Amino acid sequence: MPASKLDELCVNTIRTLSIDAVEKANSGHPGMPMGMADVAYVLWSNFLKHNPKNPNWVDRDRFILSAGHGSMLIYSLLHLTGYDLSLEEIKNFRQMGSKTPGHPEYGMTPGVETTTGPLGQGFGTGVGMAMAEHFLAAKFNKGDQKIVDHYTYAIVSDGDLMEGISHESASMAGHMGLGKLIYLYDSNSISIEGSTDLAFTEDVVKRFEAYNWHVVEIDGHDHDAINSAIEEARSITTKPSVIVCKTHIGFGSPNKQGSESSHGSPLGEDEIKLTKEAYGWDPDKKFHIPDEALNKFRQAVTKGEEAEKEWNEQLADYERSNAEAAESFKKWMNREISSEFESSLPVFDEDKKGMASRAASGKVINAIKDIVPNLFGGSADLGGSTKTDIEGSGSYIVDKPTGRTIHFGVREHGMGAAVNGMALHGGMIPYGATFFVFTDYMRPAIRLAALMKVPSIFVLTHDSIGLGEDGPTHQPVEHLASLRAMPNITILRPGDANETSYAWKAAIENTTGPTLLVLTRQNLPTQARTGNNGASLVQKGGYVFADSDKETPDAILIGTGSELQFAIEAKAELANKGVDARVVSMPSWELFEKQDAAYKESVLPSSVTNRVSIEAGSTFGWERYVGPNGKAIGLNTFGESGPYEELYEHFGITTEAVVKAALGK
Amino acid sequence: MPASKLDELCVNTIRTLSIDAVEKANSGHPGMPMGMADVAYVLWSNFLKHNPKNPNWVDRDRFILSAGHGSMLIYSLLHLTGYDLSLEEIKNFRQMGSKTPGHPEYGMTPGVETTTGPLGQGFGTGVGMAMAEHFLAAKFNKGDQKIVDHYTYAIVSDGDLMEGISHESASMAGHMGLGKLIYLYDSNSISIEGSTDLAFTEDVVKRFEAYNWHVVEIDGHDHDAINSAIEEARSITTKPSVIVCKTHIGFGSPNKQGSESSHGSPLGEDEIKLTKEAYGWDPDKKFHIPDEALNKFRQAVTKGEEAEKEWNEQLADYERSNAEAAESFKKWMNREISSEFESSLPVFDEDKKGMASRAASGKVINAIKDIVPNLFGGSADLGGSTKTDIEGSGSYIVDKPTGRTIHFGVREHGMGAAVNGMALHGGMIPYGATFFVFTDYMRPAIRLAALMKVPSIFVLTHDSIGLGEDGPTHQPVEHLASLRAMPNITILRPGDANETSYAWKAAIENTTGPTLLVLTRQNLPTQARTGNNGASLVQKGGYVFADSDKETPDAILIGTGSELQFAIEAKAELANKGVDARVVSMPSWELFEKQDAAYKESVLPSSVTNRVSIEAGSTFGWERYVGPNGKAIGLNTFGESGPYEELYEHFGITTEAVVKAALGK
Repeated sequence: MPASKLDELCVNTIRTLSIDAVEKANSGHPGMPMGMADVAYVLWSNFLKHNPKNPNWVDRDRFILSAGHGSMLIYSLLHLTGYDLSLEEIKNFRQMGSKTPGHPEYGMTPGVETTTGPLGQGFGTGVGMAMAEHFLAAKFNKGDQKIVDHYTYAIVSDGDLMEGISHESASMAGHMGLGKLIYLYDSNSISIEGSTDLAFTEDVVKRFEAYNWHVVEIDGHDHDAINSAIEEARSITTKPSVIVCKTHIGFGSPNKQGSESSHGSPLGEDEIKLTKEAYGWDPDKKFHIPDEALNKFRQAVTKGEEAEKEWNEQLADYERSNAEAAESFKKWMNREISSEFESSLPVFDEDKKGMASRAASGKVINAIKDIVPNLFGGSADLGGSTKTDIEGSGSYIVDKPTGRTIHFGVREHGMGAAVNGMALHGGMIPYGATFFVFTDYMRPAIRLAALMKVPSIFVLTHDSIGLGEDGPTHQPVEHLASLRAMPNITILRPGDANETSYAWKAAIENTTGPTLLVLTRQNLPTQARTGNNGASLVQKGGYVFADSDKETPDAILIGTGSELQFAIEAKAELANKGVDARVVSMPSWELFEKQDAAYKESVLPSSVTNRVSIEAGSTFGWERYVGPNGKAIGLNTFGESGPYEELYEHFGITTEAVVKAALGK
Repeated sequence: MPASKLDELCVNTIRTLSIDAVEKANSGHPGMPMGMADVAYVLWSNFLKHNPKNPNWVDRDRFILSAGHGSMLIYSLLHLTGYDLSLEEIKNFRQMGSKTPGHPEYGMTPGVETTTGPLGQGFGTGVGMAMAEHFLAAKFNKGDQKIVDHYTYAIVSDGDLMEGISHESASMAGHMGLGKLIYLYDSNSISIEGSTDLAFTEDVVKRFEAYNWHVVEIDGHDHDAINSAIEEARSITTKPSVIVCKTHIGFGSPNKQGSESSHGSPLGEDEIKLTKEAYGWDPDKKFHIPDEALNKFRQAVTKGEEAEKEWNEQLADYERSNAEAAESFKKWMNREISSEFESSLPVFDEDKKGMASRAASGKVINAIKDIVPNLFGGSADLGGSTKTDIEGSGSYIVDKPTGRTIHFGVREHGMGAAVNGMALHGGMIPYGATFFVFTDYMRPAIRLAALMKVPSIFVLTHDSIGLGEDGPTHQPVEHLASLRAMPNITILRPGDANETSYAWKAAIENTTGPTLLVLTRQNLPTQARTGNNGASLVQKGGYVFADSDKETPDAILIGTGSELQFAIEAKAELANKGVDARVVSMPSWELFEKQDAAYKESVLPSSVTNRVSIEAGSTFGWERYVGPNGKAIGLNTFGESGPYEELYEHFGITTEAVVKAALGK
């Protein structure tokens, strides 16, 4: 079979597999895989460095299907090139328990590098992967010994480019000059509602040139053009590239090509037959994979094994000449934390004046930076305010490629996705910082981190009305509750500087999901820890900070973060009134919920129903811990602009309020 | 005094007022007002159509300070031009209870058109205002009788342009060709962390040209250039304009001009003296307003009164020749709803098969579209899925300027801000629609609507695992809880088609905040309503749908939305087992919480502690209604991809589960 015929057969195999799987599921998006099959085939056959037998090979190229609704495209490619994804799984597309969910999910399917579907996320995540590659390459490669040397490719769609995150991430990537980032844009002129003329008429080429990207426009069904464009993009090392591929959605379908009718619904039996006939295929065969095509695709296995073998040899070479660096590299890639980590955490002396937890956090970052040398992060233009600069390391790229402080710009969403991308890539322990209220701007990225269970760390300061004069636009109220409701994330709101140390410990050691550190702008007293209330108890989420002398306390006062101090003060005042209360510090609901029932009961004995919680935020959900006889002190309206001490008084978040509540007044 | 000297005096009056207020508050951002004083002065003196004595004049130009951190710029302008904002208020900048909060807040200060501060929101909101103006002008203007004819201006900053929403909104505005939208971009090359070279090096001119904007670059301190650029922008009627104003942040400060040190902190006493000296001012005078300057600024009062008078005359003319249109115009502007509105709501017959609440919502929209002729909305590229097209009206701009279906594109955030802008503008009853999970993409806009108390309506479909095969990326879990925690929003999750009718009624009639309609993808039975359970009870938030025969029910089963049916079925099954339960339908927590204690007690009598709630989402917060002896059935993990009936079984959100829970098993 001549090469071009074989290529066509292969491409149509991707198409028909996708068509058949969507039809069988009676759900899904056939048009995009049909339209982008040529581009994907050329990329995967001629360029993508990967080993289907080891999807975790660290120097593989990353491939992202940002247009995740076209999931059958990647499932087809993974099955055909020999990943552990059987034809049975393809037939179970979109069924419960299959490895082929409606949108690609990281951790569910070998070869899926990140979860996509919510538009723009793949675009932004890829930027993070390319940043990690770029940093690690600069850090570890020695001359010709390039142990980190791979591309990040993504297929992106009209929808991706309409989303705001694509702007943030593209502007960031262009600024950083990430030359090994190559995006293939499926410009098919169709969105769900119809022609992109309805809503999307910007000049994408010009827009991306404005971002300092290399841009080229091609016919996305012309293999030579695709080849040349990818080659050219790879040759450009100082800019990211976007290849605008003009394609026909639903390619080959006699009645649905170029129409939104092929976007989000199965083609239907009749149209499928017509389409297969148009491809020159037997219209009655389903899930048919011609042997010649499979053989061609499966060359990826040998090629991939060879490529990884070569790389292993290179790594062995590298190890011989750079033993120490090689050891570091392996540790970084395995996220191994030094055994000296805990002892490097700063310990803060009791201090009434104390310090803001954001300041304590800044001290922790700079205390552990040498012990955790792959800690790497920055903020969305709030480095000084969030105290997240890694001092002395320089700024990433701006100063040098191995600078560890990242300037994300005022781009919270792009930052969130980039942090996820770095975490997914491996090698780095990445964090991103902003004001807590602006988690609203990056919530889709936080959610994906939670869904994917990747260890992204977010440092979120100015965590309540305690930020004062900036007013209600900047004062989080509902944010703690709104994020506690999200599955699989860990929030820590430490009550003083020492709790902040251990909050960071929990963050670094959490490898199964994102961690959110929620920190104050204002000073907090550094509490005495002379009894059984060592700050390492933060790791239990909630603990007895100061106990009652009675076996059964008269009351339990629960504080988090900046309000722990009020609970502590209230205990002293209540003692004067003959009420012997216990103080519970509760920096993390999620960690507390993970403790066994006995521990939880020991901290919050069910016999004590006189309970008061205090937290400068919405009381939503606190019923869980204070119960029907308890009282939750908080703020269920928006805040106000003014000095923070006045705001606390105004909104009744005070020691006095705790005392009153505990006295049942 | 020669004109140019007087202009300089005026500009420096803006600067010194801003400097002094920030200094007195010991908090705020002086650099931006100092840098943009020239631009703002020229705009306000020579172009802005406004009447300081009537900030609500409907045909005023809208002015937005999108860079809300520079709030002293607008407060200075408002005070100086004669708005009801005293010098005392300026001196109370950023103090509790003042009209001069840290960031401009709508409703707090006369002349502030929208709340800004969270970057990009003003940018996006302005687009909505310009859309409203454009629609209303096309609808009501007759030949030369232009009763709607005003501009929307905004001052935008580097930070605004870095945010993703600026991309969505700019691309949308360029696509729509909103010629009366004019943005003045403060290009001062400084962000909080330092030079914009750290993070923001895109070519803004080229970028906005790519969006189909008219772009011109000028020296932002050159009054002639500012004048010409604004004139030119006004002359271009088919494109929005952005004027790139190159400015010096902290203009005139000998040591802080052009530096991030003037961005977010007071200048300090010494530097203030030096700065005032540089302006040729007495360094010791504070809050000084030279008489000549005040006289010049206050010309705005006479000019404004004259302009409004002229407009009133024009309106009177219009009324004479177009009585009916004039009446409509007034009704629209006053958000008057026809008395036939309630009777126009569709009533759905009992039907076991029923329909999805999104489908019922689509029927409501199209049933009321003539009775509520200013209902105007659309979706983020999901019109067919969210059922939000206004049939027969045509598409806004794409078909005709008075088309009522808007194609926002895949731009949830831009849509949210545009809906807010239309609501703020007045005249329209705007809505925006997307999948419920994608509220994450527009959360900052929802929050601003809540903070501003503007009646934006959001239609949010595919509201749970009930969407099935699209999988966890598209299945909301935490979204109900996360939004219920937000102050001042109203969420309705109707349980069948008739509840959907009344949910829309509640939305249209809510004028004090945003309403979120949370709707299913899947069919729901249309319930029988033969007793005291008329669907109008939706307006109470929660009501007894089916009562126990006993005075004190054996159990209370609470359902919302698609899970109401399980509560109803469970009641029947429990009856067979000798348990006589009450069913409560609870479409809206917020409306229920607004009822008096007696009503709430009548629905959920405290004596009944055997309570079960069922809702296909996080159980977070349900403790409030089920109490410590109750059980909340829901989903506290992410969902899965598969047919929705299987998912409900898999996650145990079933009639059986309700029965079991009510039996205490």
